[in-house]
Amino acid sequence: MSRYEAIREECRAANAALPASGLVDLTFGNVSVCDREAGVFAIKPSGVAYSALKSEDMVIVDFDGRVVEGTLNPSSDTPTHRRLFLGFPGIRSVVHTHSRKAVAFAQAARGIPLLGTTHADYFRGEVPVTRALTACEISDAYEWETGNVIVERFEGLDPMEIPAVLVRNHGTFAWGPSGAKAVENALALEIVADMAFHALTLDPSAKSPSLALSERHFLRKHGPTATYGQA
Amino acid sequence: MSRYEAIREECRAANAALPASGLVDLTFGNVSVCDREAGVFAIKPSGVAYSALKSEDMVIVDFDGRVVEGTLNPSSDTPTHRRLFLGFPGIRSVVHTHSRKAVAFAQAARGIPLLGTTHADYFRGEVPVTRALTACEISDAYEWETGNVIVERFEGLDPMEIPAVLVRNHGTFAWGPSGAKAVENALALEIVADMAFHALTLDPSAKSPSLALSERHFLRKHGPTATYGQA
Amino acid sequence: MSRYEAIREECRAANAALPASGLVDLTFGNVSVCDREAGVFAIKPSGVAYSALKSEDMVIVDFDGRVVEGTLNPSSDTPTHRRLFLGFPGIRSVVHTHSRKAVAFAQAARGIPLLGTTHADYFRGEVPVTRALTACEISDAYEWETGNVIVERFEGLDPMEIPAVLVRNHGTFAWGPSGAKAVENALALEIVADMAFHALTLDPSAKSPSLALSERHFLRKHGPTATYGQA
Amino acid sequence: MSRYEAIREECRAANAALPASGLVDLTFGNVSVCDREAGVFAIKPSGVAYSALKSEDMVIVDFDGRVVEGTLNPSSDTPTHRRLFLGFPGIRSVVHTHSRKAVAFAQAARGIPLLGTTHADYFRGEVPVTRALTACEISDAYEWETGNVIVERFEGLDPMEIPAVLVRNHGTFAWGPSGAKAVENALALEIVADMAFHALTLDPSAKSPSLALSERHFLRKHGPTATYGQA
Repeated sequence: MSRYEAIREECRAANAALPASGLVDLTFGNVSVCDREAGVFAIKPSGVAYSALKSEDMVIVDFDGRVVEGTLNPSSDTPTHRRLFLGFPGIRSVVHTHSRKAVAFAQAARGIPLLGTTHADYFRGEVPVTRALTACEISDAYEWETGNVIVERFEGLDPMEIPAVLVRNHGTFAWGPSGAKAVENALALEIVADMAFHALTLDPSAKSPSLALSERHFLRKHGPTATYGQA
Repeated sequence: MSRYEAIREECRAANAALPASGLVDLTFGNVSVCDREAGVFAIKPSGVAYSALKSEDMVIVDFDGRVVEGTLNPSSDTPTHRRLFLGFPGIRSVVHTHSRKAVAFAQAARGIPLLGTTHADYFRGEVPVTRALTACEISDAYEWETGNVIVERFEGLDPMEIPAVLVRNHGTFAWGPSGAKAVENALALEIVADMAFHALTLDPSAKSPSLALSERHFLRKHGPTATYGQA
Repeated sequence: MSRYEAIREECRAANAALPASGLVDLTFGNVSVCDREAGVFAIKPSGVAYSALKSEDMVIVDFDGRVVEGTLNPSSDTPTHRRLFLGFPGIRSVVHTHSRKAVAFAQAARGIPLLGTTHADYFRGEVPVTRALTACEISDAYEWETGNVIVERFEGLDPMEIPAVLVRNHGTFAWGPSGAKAVENALALEIVADMAFHALTLDPSAKSPSLALSERHFLRKHGPTATYGQA
Repeated sequence: MSRYEAIREECRAANAALPASGLVDLTFGNVSVCDREAGVFAIKPSGVAYSALKSEDMVIVDFDGRVVEGTLNPSSDTPTHRRLFLGFPGIRSVVHTHSRKAVAFAQAARGIPLLGTTHADYFRGEVPVTRALTACEISDAYEWETGNVIVERFEGLDPMEIPAVLVRNHGTFAWGPSGAKAVENALALEIVADMAFHALTLDPSAKSPSLALSERHFLRKHGPTATYGQA
């Protein structure tokens, strides 16, 4: 049995959770899970249906981008995942989706504004949208550069406090400490995009609540003062 | 067997009905059911998945906020539920959700206007939205103060005739004489929010029908002249 | 066995089809089926869950409004159904729903414009919206008067060619030659309301296609020149 | 066994996939699959429920429009399918739907603009909308002329690179090298229509990304430089 069996299985389970959560259509999404000690991550193979995925189908890639184990092609988006693992040392799993309401914001080139406590429970501020990639970035190493513009966009932001991003005219990336939590963050992103879409349709100048309210909610669920859930 | 077995089970069943009704995503919602004679209420434990809930997991809390029975942490929103049981003596159950279309109104800081008979069948007038909480209210005893602004908003309104409210930039609270009926009111709230959203998109100045019509519908289902349903 | 067994069962099956079709929430809808020779119709009992309905629960009412058979209260909307059976001699079944997108148009006090062939396949022109009822009409015999404003609205229109209507600020009525076909018409109404909602959001001045196109579609499915389906 | 058994079965399976994919309501859709060597195509019979379809119900029609095998009436839209097989030599299957968001664009007389990579993965540019048919075209050979305006609209466009179209005020046609792939293209069309609808509601002047980005995505999945999927 592979020494990577644990991350393979965590990766398979998180990928399988995508269609069940309504986050992906067709094969528009993928999850990776990394083992930082071993310096590798497991990632979905490209273009394979979620329901057919087996643990051994996951491709093991190292942080230099070499396939270490696996006979299938890894996801086209592998270099983006790799860039995020390198740029955000606190994360263990990355999820990419084209979830529909979040994509609507990405296509409108807008971040998702913090309009309420549902958002504040998960994201400590607006979920940002990246700049457009240049023609050079697209022609050279497109998927790697996609990771670069994400990391660039997080200058001054903490990826542990805002665990998702919109890539302009493209889709979403979310991350977390485990496959399950990264998928949960991707789902929370779609939910708050849906709520924000409808709030902004009702009132295009809808405002964020006070910082007092959003901080209260974020800190109720995160950090040393968190009280949410069971001990 | 606990003397609170009946409200525990009613509370569990009502919580379990939330995801089936489409009212909650992830764990964004909770139901409580009270026993006024005993001076306590049962409430969902914090952050536990609905499908896993057992009757004995419900936490029993008294009207002073002390946990009377149960080993799990009660919902973070427990003080809000308690405030509503104290402020609205006619109710037996409280439901909190982040149901999506209702939240859109809360994030746009708008009540849900009475635009038709579906609304009038359940709510005798606009479903109001609270004012924003002050920074002091948020930092002191946030969840209790959330209950306070709801009770404040109902000055001059009858909570038995408008069994729901939107908390600004947050979510919904609904209530009723039983867990099942409180969940039904929360569902009716989401349905009328959905209908109002689309009506207002078609016509931002959509008007309420005549009071004659809305009263006729409300009183067909409520009060001594009700004719709806079976005797 | 009741001589009305056939319409009872047809009525039960059509009522049971409502939630499966997504047309009703909670108990917001009902179907009736008539036997014109016998001068009666079967209708859903008031406030009973669809899944629990048995054939023998259907209430048999005559065209003067008297309950002929059955121990349950008939739907509150019974007088509206009766008025439609009297006013539209060609129909055998009436469906009432609060289906959401159609209600949005009713709450915006707009008919559903004919914007495409999906609409034209079912409705030979705009699906009209009634005027508001007067206070007198509402206080006297509200449900009967609801039927009256529908029949009034169809002056100059053929209910066999436009088998549905929106009641302003209320909901929908649809009809047809059988319970199944009336439910299909109610479903087509909701579908075209959904399509029209989104088309009008994209372009508030969206126009009807040529009469040549809509007539071609309507007549492909209806009347002596119909070619759709199997002989 | 019929020599056309393979295309009958492929056609049946693709038709059966339509309601499961959410692309069709009632019986608003059909798929055909052709055998170019034999000069025939299999197509859904008119007005038959998808769940009831058997392989032997598919009607075999030749490229002159004559029924070669089958006892049921072929779909009313058969001449449109035939026109597309003749006009677009590279395709093997055609799908017609009234999928809701795509129809909203067709009813607003707008093509679906390329706003993001989801679109670019499937369609190399805007999905176009046809002109309206003239009264003569509608009265003469309506379904054949529908195919003509589609072929006319593709002057200067490559149907292999934009495998779908909106017929103004009507519905969608999509195509592909197999029944399954044509249905996938029809589903992708509905998904990108849904995303574009919401993006345009957020920002009516939402712009296409750079050609560099859309070309990169299209060519990642199509043509000799494609890298997506497994070898």
